[in-house]
Amino acid sequence: MITYHEAYTIVLKHSMDFGRVQVPLDKADDRILAEDILADRDFPPFDRATKDGIAIALEGDKQPLDYYNVQGIAAAGASQLTLVDPSHCLEVMTGAIMPKNANTVVMYEHIALKEGQAYINQSVTSGQNVHAKGSDEPRGSVLLSKGQRVSAAEVGILAAVGKSSVLVQKNPKVGLFSTGDELVPIDAVPKVHQIRRSNAHTLKAALGQEGIGADMLHIQDDKQTIHKALDKAMTMYDVLILSGGVSKGKYDFLPEVLEELGVQKHFHRVQQRPGKPFWFGTDPKTGTIIFGFPGNPTSTFANYHLYFRPWLNTCFGQPSSEVDVFLTDDFENTTDLTRFIRAYAFVEKGRLYARLVHGNGSGDLTSLTMANGFVRVGPKKKLNKNKSAVFVPTRKILW
Amino acid sequence: MITYHEAYTIVLKHSMDFGRVQVPLDKADDRILAEDILADRDFPPFDRATKDGIAIALEGDKQPLDYYNVQGIAAAGASQLTLVDPSHCLEVMTGAIMPKNANTVVMYEHIALKEGQAYINQSVTSGQNVHAKGSDEPRGSVLLSKGQRVSAAEVGILAAVGKSSVLVQKNPKVGLFSTGDELVPIDAVPKVHQIRRSNAHTLKAALGQEGIGADMLHIQDDKQTIHKALDKAMTMYDVLILSGGVSKGKYDFLPEVLEELGVQKHFHRVQQRPGKPFWFGTDPKTGTIIFGFPGNPTSTFANYHLYFRPWLNTCFGQPSSEVDVFLTDDFENTTDLTRFIRAYAFVEKGRLYARLVHGNGSGDLTSLTMANGFVRVGPKKKLNKNKSAVFVPTRKILW
Repeated sequence: MITYHEAYTIVLKHSMDFGRVQVPLDKADDRILAEDILADRDFPPFDRATKDGIAIALEGDKQPLDYYNVQGIAAAGASQLTLVDPSHCLEVMTGAIMPKNANTVVMYEHIALKEGQAYINQSVTSGQNVHAKGSDEPRGSVLLSKGQRVSAAEVGILAAVGKSSVLVQKNPKVGLFSTGDELVPIDAVPKVHQIRRSNAHTLKAALGQEGIGADMLHIQDDKQTIHKALDKAMTMYDVLILSGGVSKGKYDFLPEVLEELGVQKHFHRVQQRPGKPFWFGTDPKTGTIIFGFPGNPTSTFANYHLYFRPWLNTCFGQPSSEVDVFLTDDFENTTDLTRFIRAYAFVEKGRLYARLVHGNGSGDLTSLTMANGFVRVGPKKKLNKNKSAVFVPTRKILW
Repeated sequence: MITYHEAYTIVLKHSMDFGRVQVPLDKADDRILAEDILADRDFPPFDRATKDGIAIALEGDKQPLDYYNVQGIAAAGASQLTLVDPSHCLEVMTGAIMPKNANTVVMYEHIALKEGQAYINQSVTSGQNVHAKGSDEPRGSVLLSKGQRVSAAEVGILAAVGKSSVLVQKNPKVGLFSTGDELVPIDAVPKVHQIRRSNAHTLKAALGQEGIGADMLHIQDDKQTIHKALDKAMTMYDVLILSGGVSKGKYDFLPEVLEELGVQKHFHRVQQRPGKPFWFGTDPKTGTIIFGFPGNPTSTFANYHLYFRPWLNTCFGQPSSEVDVFLTDDFENTTDLTRFIRAYAFVEKGRLYARLVHGNGSGDLTSLTMANGFVRVGPKKKLNKNKSAVFVPTRKILW
């Protein structure tokens, strides 16, 4: 059996590249850019009025005239107009291209319009209220870089430079395999000795939060059936997440079948709780990565967040989501295992705290809904109230 | 002009109820439950073995026998077996129903199997490794409550109790209206005085992060066209988000048209930067709420996060996502406006910090991609390094 840190390191070492794919802009949110995004023109593309008012010509530290003759209106979206001479002004709208020969905008609040003349009643600085061409970003500059995650702000940039589709990192093809004869579909009424299969749904939802779809397949505890199903699945998926069938039970065929299939085992069983019977390997023929999680709900849930998600982030070149928190409770780990304690993190006065959520062993799913992550406690370690600890989030916390 | 706090209070006062809708389980993630979820049976539904090993009968503080005769195997998913007498044991698999007359499981690691007999080589406590029927949750208890947000952990519970579909709060129907003759579609090549319309795409992506779809409609700066389009839209949408057309420009027809249409204005213009020309109202005929945001990208982006998102959270009974952070810089607001400064928040040693991101006025979208929120600075307020400040997130930060 290896330690949690050894297991974590091995898992992250097996990151893979899923390739790249062109997606329409409205599917780009939360994806990772696989191309640099350049300014296709100057930003702004012209000297742009930033206020509604009048555009005038005003040199250096000169004072404006008392009034200007209004020559017309420069609307946003209209072609550039020309100021006939410095005694004239053009009304100008926010977003409009500055008229030729004009360089300064005086907002309506600071003028009075009377009989075709604009009277200025405030001091004016040459060049004010003009957003100079190229002053944000000159044409050709990198606006967004390969590897950046797209959110609403990036979608705005992509739209502004005309990327109606964009190259992003491909998501892995994921197959979710559950085993266990005691499990029935969720719309079935289970007999007394049966339970509904929830793990695959939990995993599907967790993957969905990463924008990744997944196929679900349930296999009965029959060695032949499992062998056949896994053999086929390895040709179809980049990643298989198995839930159940990796413990020491008489019907826990998976390690044996995976070995028969020639899958390279990297480790089986980790000194941790929950999630000890974790099996991890790679199929050398197809490159498929196999995460074999133990079948109880908390173990599968924990291992997904402790291993799969950091692995996925590494594949995408994204940072880990682990953070330091202050504990609101003491906790002593008297075991030789790295323990992951359900916890609820919250921000108070700029500090990130976590209080422990007490559950009822690893079969207990309801306490997971009261937590938003796990606090990690090393073997034989004591964590103290108000001291820092490592926290692994299992749902959105600050958003 | 009203203050930011007045505007915020007015917006939140106009929260609405969008109704309820039944969705399939695989569409439930991130939705808000509109029904309590009860345990449809005891959890666990039977005395459940939590380890692979042997099941024995062991009274109170008695010691186990030296060995037991192995009577057979109780698999997970099989009907309940019966232990013939206390000198026998049944091999038992994790997840299996405990055999009748047995109450204790000794794991394989602590026994030796030899010629049909199981020798015990560790101390044993009566009742160990059994997850007692109903000990997590008795039948009928509330597992999840109305108003809770669904994430992967809740999907697991929903699956476990057989909810293949679930009642959740309906999302609002949102229409995104942009105006401005200078704006061309994103796949067009703009003329020199034109720019591509990015705001509607930004807003669509932001709403998408809430799981909300939205229709986009661009209207030319023509009063008649705007009148007709808005009149129709009010009958179709719970919420209209307008971007542009609410400033003081000659072609900023929206306030006027909304008045003609009988829409009740709650306020126009707020003492804040960016986002000052914000117009907010309700159509008394249809109940449609109208958020009229100014057209420049930073203003629309800021107002969406400062007003729309808190409003949406209030409609769903969810808490605000504002948090306190420690600033890494000083900032002095010399204006009479509440200012929202782009900032980047990060967690370090259990403390949540924000450093200010310096932008280039409100026409500048690229600096938004370097920020993950806004720091709020009251009128004439000075914020000091290492002191706390209010932060409004604009993308996922801790997840």
